[in-house]
Amino acid sequence: MWNEYGQKAKEASKALAKAGNQLRVNAVCLIADRLECNSANLMVANSYDLQTARRNGMSEAMLDRLRVTSERITQMASGLRVLAEQQDPLGRSLEQMERPNGLHIEKISVPLGVIALIYEARPNVTADAAGLCLRAGNAVILRGGKEAINTNRLIAGLMRGALAELNLPEDAVQLMEDEGREGAQALMTMNAYVDLLIPRGSKALIDSVVQHATVPVLKTGEGVCHTYVDKDAGIGMAASIVHNAKVSRCTVCNALECLLVHKDIAEAALPVISGKLFESGVTILGDEETLRIVPQAQPATENDWGHEFLSLTLACRVVDSMEDAMEHISRYGSGHSEAIVTENLETAEHFLNAVDAAAVYHNASTRFTDGGEFGMGAEIGISTQKLHARGPAGLNALTSYKYIIKGGGQIR
Amino acid sequence: MWNEYGQKAKEASKALAKAGNQLRVNAVCLIADRLECNSANLMVANSYDLQTARRNGMSEAMLDRLRVTSERITQMASGLRVLAEQQDPLGRSLEQMERPNGLHIEKISVPLGVIALIYEARPNVTADAAGLCLRAGNAVILRGGKEAINTNRLIAGLMRGALAELNLPEDAVQLMEDEGREGAQALMTMNAYVDLLIPRGSKALIDSVVQHATVPVLKTGEGVCHTYVDKDAGIGMAASIVHNAKVSRCTVCNALECLLVHKDIAEAALPVISGKLFESGVTILGDEETLRIVPQAQPATENDWGHEFLSLTLACRVVDSMEDAMEHISRYGSGHSEAIVTENLETAEHFLNAVDAAAVYHNASTRFTDGGEFGMGAEIGISTQKLHARGPAGLNALTSYKYIIKGGGQIR
Repeated sequence: MWNEYGQKAKEASKALAKAGNQLRVNAVCLIADRLECNSANLMVANSYDLQTARRNGMSEAMLDRLRVTSERITQMASGLRVLAEQQDPLGRSLEQMERPNGLHIEKISVPLGVIALIYEARPNVTADAAGLCLRAGNAVILRGGKEAINTNRLIAGLMRGALAELNLPEDAVQLMEDEGREGAQALMTMNAYVDLLIPRGSKALIDSVVQHATVPVLKTGEGVCHTYVDKDAGIGMAASIVHNAKVSRCTVCNALECLLVHKDIAEAALPVISGKLFESGVTILGDEETLRIVPQAQPATENDWGHEFLSLTLACRVVDSMEDAMEHISRYGSGHSEAIVTENLETAEHFLNAVDAAAVYHNASTRFTDGGEFGMGAEIGISTQKLHARGPAGLNALTSYKYIIKGGGQIR
Repeated sequence: MWNEYGQKAKEASKALAKAGNQLRVNAVCLIADRLECNSANLMVANSYDLQTARRNGMSEAMLDRLRVTSERITQMASGLRVLAEQQDPLGRSLEQMERPNGLHIEKISVPLGVIALIYEARPNVTADAAGLCLRAGNAVILRGGKEAINTNRLIAGLMRGALAELNLPEDAVQLMEDEGREGAQALMTMNAYVDLLIPRGSKALIDSVVQHATVPVLKTGEGVCHTYVDKDAGIGMAASIVHNAKVSRCTVCNALECLLVHKDIAEAALPVISGKLFESGVTILGDEETLRIVPQAQPATENDWGHEFLSLTLACRVVDSMEDAMEHISRYGSGHSEAIVTENLETAEHFLNAVDAAAVYHNASTRFTDGGEFGMGAEIGISTQKLHARGPAGLNALTSYKYIIKGGGQIR
């Protein structure tokens, strides 16, 4: 029964793969228009979801994620229009080889095929993720949290309507409706149909998918980001970068979780850096040396290193050298985003090359690890695995490739 | 206990990632030398494995795979030297972006980290696969079939010795020895340490790994390859390509399994093509129309379409049009390698673009789908998935990338 979603998606993906760039652009734009035209309907549908969720005791934070406002509808629509403007991710010539035997081999980008998404009660993911998949020529199966079912049903319906109007297969977007978790579980093992499964949401959700899926998975999520303030750092710049990385949006994966400061600059830098953080209500959990320099800080415990606070709490440690800082990052980091602040270019180069993370920064905030900021238009998530896509995963991450080989009768 | 393999590999991978190109080249070359110098010892160790295997009733075909000869040792060594000559897969600048805010972003290739291999009783895989992993800066955990344990132990020991001599971490190559399957099972779920797991061997082995692994897997294997002889094909070229694709080595995944012939050329082409095949002892399983034209053929059943014979048996069908041929390929193909033979360039273009497979050929044998033939030096396998690597997976498929971002104090 659940396999039907896969079969339909596979069929749709074949038709979609043949659709040219302009048709895919038109589809994404038409969906944006439809979302805006149906703004009032969307908010009505969403109000049912909100009502039920409130009755079931959903927290305020979760209710906020579930909520659709006219501003958020505008955001979804403009996100789709930005995707439309991106260069076509398909048909790119990635490599060309002329072999000694005369064979001409070309490696060309093609769609992945069928992408499945399992996510929670954020209706904007429905529009954003499906838009990315369609722009890259993929069919998508959406399995969102049931708390958002009325909103998601309407968004998916608008997308399907837009596809049909352009003579594209409406099954290129399917919303899976399962009462329990059987549908989601079926998706995880639909190896005959699903080319990529992307879980989006809590660590528990992502871990569960990684645990149970037999289809290829793109893992996104955890970010334990560090910023190392070198002895040769400009203190003003360090304070500004650290403040921005911690405070501008502390609930996201590219926010700063742990500050490392070289001992030679700690005495001068920490009061400036911490003063700026305290003004914004940050709690600092420091090691002994930090506590000596910044008496307002609270003592850190071993558990605070490598912890993803996702709040206005920051761990802080004074280190003896850059090597110690890199050792700390290697041990406690999650391989997401790491930064060094220094005016010494040689030191910076060493750090940039040696640190193993998706994004390594010199003199900038880790908050830039983001598909939009990287010029990708949007992203389906920030990959924390090394396979296929690492860091912000944009349209190109939703493609595969094939080899086209032209010969004149060559045999082996 | 099994986790120790992972921990050691992770540590070794960090040291290896810092090793420059020349050091990795030297390592691979030194291993090649050591294999050749220890030729006699290798054959002695191998003779113990062969003896035990024979006593346990191993088939002749399997014994042949297990056997190490001086010729095969030379092959392993020269394979490693070819790897040494390849361009460094690390440190390649894959993309550069200058953002409006002045951030300079560069995407650079880096090692994957720790690669695990689960394979059967083919000792050459031990040298070939470990060589590929090392050349690309990765640590490798090898879990080969226990039938080859004495041979593998010696090969791994020679590799570790060569690494140590160059002051590289010997744990960059580890041979896992488990009596039962506990070690292999532990590898499949070693998410904290294993960045990529590659199963190599029978379909049963690969399916089992895909089923049970929670770490990222690269699936290789099944090849149900078709060749479509178009109505505008040159008959001589068609016969030569079909013969080569079927006969040159019928037990491999890029060998031809099903011939599709356009009805307008079938009467003229099939006798020529089949005559050449019969001379080499091929059995043809044909549809009705094939049987009419080639009386020596035997009737095909529905199960023969999409079947990977891996023998001198070929399914054959006469189709009404290229669309029918593509429909057949889409339904029964495994997405490995598909070919068209035609003198009509427009027809060829249509086929090359529309058929969804890792490698699509015009006027050449599918037998060319191979890392060596594609100019990659060697391959770790031929990927049948679309994620990360598709088709022959060479050194570049054993790398990931990271983003290096240089700023001047940018905040978001």
